[in-house]
Amino acid sequence: MFKKETYIARRAELARKMEGRGLIVLPGHVESPVNYRGNTYHFRQDSTFLYYFGLSVPGLAAVIDTDTGEATLFGNDFTVDDIIWMGPQPRIGDLAASVGVMRTAPFAAFAAGVGEAVARERKVHFLPPYRGETKLLLGTMLPAGAAPSVDLIRAVVSMRDKKSDEEIEQIEEACATGYEMHTLAMSMCHLGVTEREIAGAIEGVSLQRGWGVSFHPIVSQHGETLHNHNHSGVLEAGRMLLVDAGAEATSGYASDFTRTIPVGGRFTARQKDIYDIVLAANNLAFDIATPDVRYVDVHLASARVLVDGLRSLGLIRGSIDDAVAAGAHSLFMPHGLGHLMGLDVHDMEDIGENYVGYDEETPRSTHPSCSACRMGRRLEAGMVVSVEPGIYFVPALIDKWRSSEGAGGGTLGKIAAGFIDFARVESYLDFGGIRLEDDMLITPDGNRLLGARRVPITPDEIAKAVNG
Amino acid sequence: MFKKETYIARRAELARKMEGRGLIVLPGHVESPVNYRGNTYHFRQDSTFLYYFGLSVPGLAAVIDTDTGEATLFGNDFTVDDIIWMGPQPRIGDLAASVGVMRTAPFAAFAAGVGEAVARERKVHFLPPYRGETKLLLGTMLPAGAAPSVDLIRAVVSMRDKKSDEEIEQIEEACATGYEMHTLAMSMCHLGVTEREIAGAIEGVSLQRGWGVSFHPIVSQHGETLHNHNHSGVLEAGRMLLVDAGAEATSGYASDFTRTIPVGGRFTARQKDIYDIVLAANNLAFDIATPDVRYVDVHLASARVLVDGLRSLGLIRGSIDDAVAAGAHSLFMPHGLGHLMGLDVHDMEDIGENYVGYDEETPRSTHPSCSACRMGRRLEAGMVVSVEPGIYFVPALIDKWRSSEGAGGGTLGKIAAGFIDFARVESYLDFGGIRLEDDMLITPDGNRLLGARRVPITPDEIAKAVNG
Repeated sequence: MFKKETYIARRAELARKMEGRGLIVLPGHVESPVNYRGNTYHFRQDSTFLYYFGLSVPGLAAVIDTDTGEATLFGNDFTVDDIIWMGPQPRIGDLAASVGVMRTAPFAAFAAGVGEAVARERKVHFLPPYRGETKLLLGTMLPAGAAPSVDLIRAVVSMRDKKSDEEIEQIEEACATGYEMHTLAMSMCHLGVTEREIAGAIEGVSLQRGWGVSFHPIVSQHGETLHNHNHSGVLEAGRMLLVDAGAEATSGYASDFTRTIPVGGRFTARQKDIYDIVLAANNLAFDIATPDVRYVDVHLASARVLVDGLRSLGLIRGSIDDAVAAGAHSLFMPHGLGHLMGLDVHDMEDIGENYVGYDEETPRSTHPSCSACRMGRRLEAGMVVSVEPGIYFVPALIDKWRSSEGAGGGTLGKIAAGFIDFARVESYLDFGGIRLEDDMLITPDGNRLLGARRVPITPDEIAKAVNG
Repeated sequence: MFKKETYIARRAELARKMEGRGLIVLPGHVESPVNYRGNTYHFRQDSTFLYYFGLSVPGLAAVIDTDTGEATLFGNDFTVDDIIWMGPQPRIGDLAASVGVMRTAPFAAFAAGVGEAVARERKVHFLPPYRGETKLLLGTMLPAGAAPSVDLIRAVVSMRDKKSDEEIEQIEEACATGYEMHTLAMSMCHLGVTEREIAGAIEGVSLQRGWGVSFHPIVSQHGETLHNHNHSGVLEAGRMLLVDAGAEATSGYASDFTRTIPVGGRFTARQKDIYDIVLAANNLAFDIATPDVRYVDVHLASARVLVDGLRSLGLIRGSIDDAVAAGAHSLFMPHGLGHLMGLDVHDMEDIGENYVGYDEETPRSTHPSCSACRMGRRLEAGMVVSVEPGIYFVPALIDKWRSSEGAGGGTLGKIAAGFIDFARVESYLDFGGIRLEDDMLITPDGNRLLGARRVPITPDEIAKAVNG
């Protein structure tokens, strides 16, 4: 938690941006049950609530009145019996005061008060709910069919998208834990170890140092499966382990790194060829990202590096410019270069990716060259983004492209026919996938890598981290 | 997952118990979001769904028709695009066949089909929902105010409360991981280590060996705070660390152990006096628990051991029988001796503790001697229960009793005045609390401790586990 002046200033700025437009309604999280109400997951506060109110405590809600700028915190004080079971607990008034809020009320007054404002036809602004409990709560106080507020989304994004120095400090802390997690994974990357053992060990580190992982880690020899949380594999000779994992500091800020580690520490020549291309694409992003550059252009510049490399291996044909313009790289990297990071590892994804990663000047594109990019708009100093190029050989995707080519039709068929050497590509069907991800802060005159030390990334560094 | 015959037999038995009474509706779980929809907690299936359908996959639901005994599994097949991102996935038909279900339908047919049955005035039985997402789903298909089915609750409890050999094997696996977690905690229990480091390390072990913890571990030098998940403390000389933690096997079955470890491994004389009393109360339960004995009587027998010991230390006065009958022990152990265990660490707590731990013969009591007992009814072979006596010095509870005594009134005041030596008790206000918990299987002729080896518990074993 930051000092209370931070939260007072943030709320004042939000109220100013929304001035005269009614009530801003921010429900916090309740506990999230695993298999019965009393058995809960690690508590995680809603990030926007955390940003404006700083309190990682279940059962709170808040309202900001944009006419007066006044904030009210809603929550119930603990009873004597609660205190017997839970130990001494702060009172709501004390919690509120610790983040500079002067008005408090019991939790029941939240729904009642908002319901009353709705009845008096005051405008009520809320963000898209994503937890069932929040949806149920909003359902009790809002008219059926009430829609989340785009004005509020825009106002929140315009504040949360750039990080202050004290936020960067927290992200650096999460990066330090991420470093430990990844180097531990490397030290365990030996024949016969299970993916689950490594996933559990690194999640353990994140829990020892902070609030745990910033997302469920991917620890898989099938790096080509992008959303892979199956950790049942046993490490085999000749394969690579993709580890995509980050930590959450106790403040809620996230880190997010990916490394791809050969089992036993040494790449084969074929692996190293692909690895070097991905590493060059990652490094390039740090050479060129700077305020005012659009992130879609950084993505496309990295794609050029990928295409150049894949061309030299005979997997892509034709000119680099044409192949990138057509989106030929998206067979090998069917995702964007990165995303904003902050209190969420995909920052503000709950609010809506298109408001976070795009704007009027750079709307989301459906073109294959960047259709799956989470982030496209111009960079600004203070933004934190992930940089995560990859090359994957996804059998189902290669099939889809190849059959489009056979069918002779559609955009995909044309790219496939024009730029892909499927005979070569299919000789890589057993390859898996490589991704290399770092976290980048945009500075006034360029960018810098987050984390005191870069997580081992060159083949030599990796070999050393695996074999000690 | 067990073999499909197990699930076929379980569903047939449930249908028989509910024969001719309409539809049994069992929604499975969807993913549970942390801070946005795509960032989810570790998936945990609903335990009753897991018991009858064995599939730990999000987005499923099931209906059992008690007229025909027929089961239908609802869920959506993955699209080609899903498979590109998630790798090859089994089809719903294959999932269903793997647990002996012949009929499947798309997920949307679940709510539609149940809604239609409701419209035709068929009786629909469901269990109490505890996740927001499940409440929202049920809300779309059931009439407003529809109540969970007590018939179904009773039928499910009558099956899940006794464990088969294959279930016991799974609980033993969770116990083996629990053993590792606790001995690791002991080896770390040294001056200057943080509670968080230990909590994270043992949760890491549970993730390395299975699905993770069976509940959010308690790792605290304030063992007197019963629901304590604050792990910010640093281990101090002269204090004890209470560790209440268990693992969940990949099948979902739970273990649950508590140990109380002196920082550095050696108890002070005052700590050892109290520790020996709690250990004797734990051991006694294993001496007397056997089928047909009511668990409330095992609780009271353990309470006698506590009272006997506390009397010899001068904290309780009067006769042992009178003190236990009055409930004087509940100042020091304000909870019951244990609870049923199985797919949930508090087995079937979602369904309702009073149906699980009590029955018509042994209804829940409000008497102070066992008012907070989760489990009171007669033991039967195949039941798994926790055995967890404790002695705590809870300042807020001592205050409450003492002020009741002063006020001279009420049941509490009488117990306080009759049996408690507050001057002695208050000399222990800085003591903390001790709990010692093991897991017990009721066998046809008595009981046995679960786990291949008992987690170190004598002061000598503890000293060795701390100091190697």
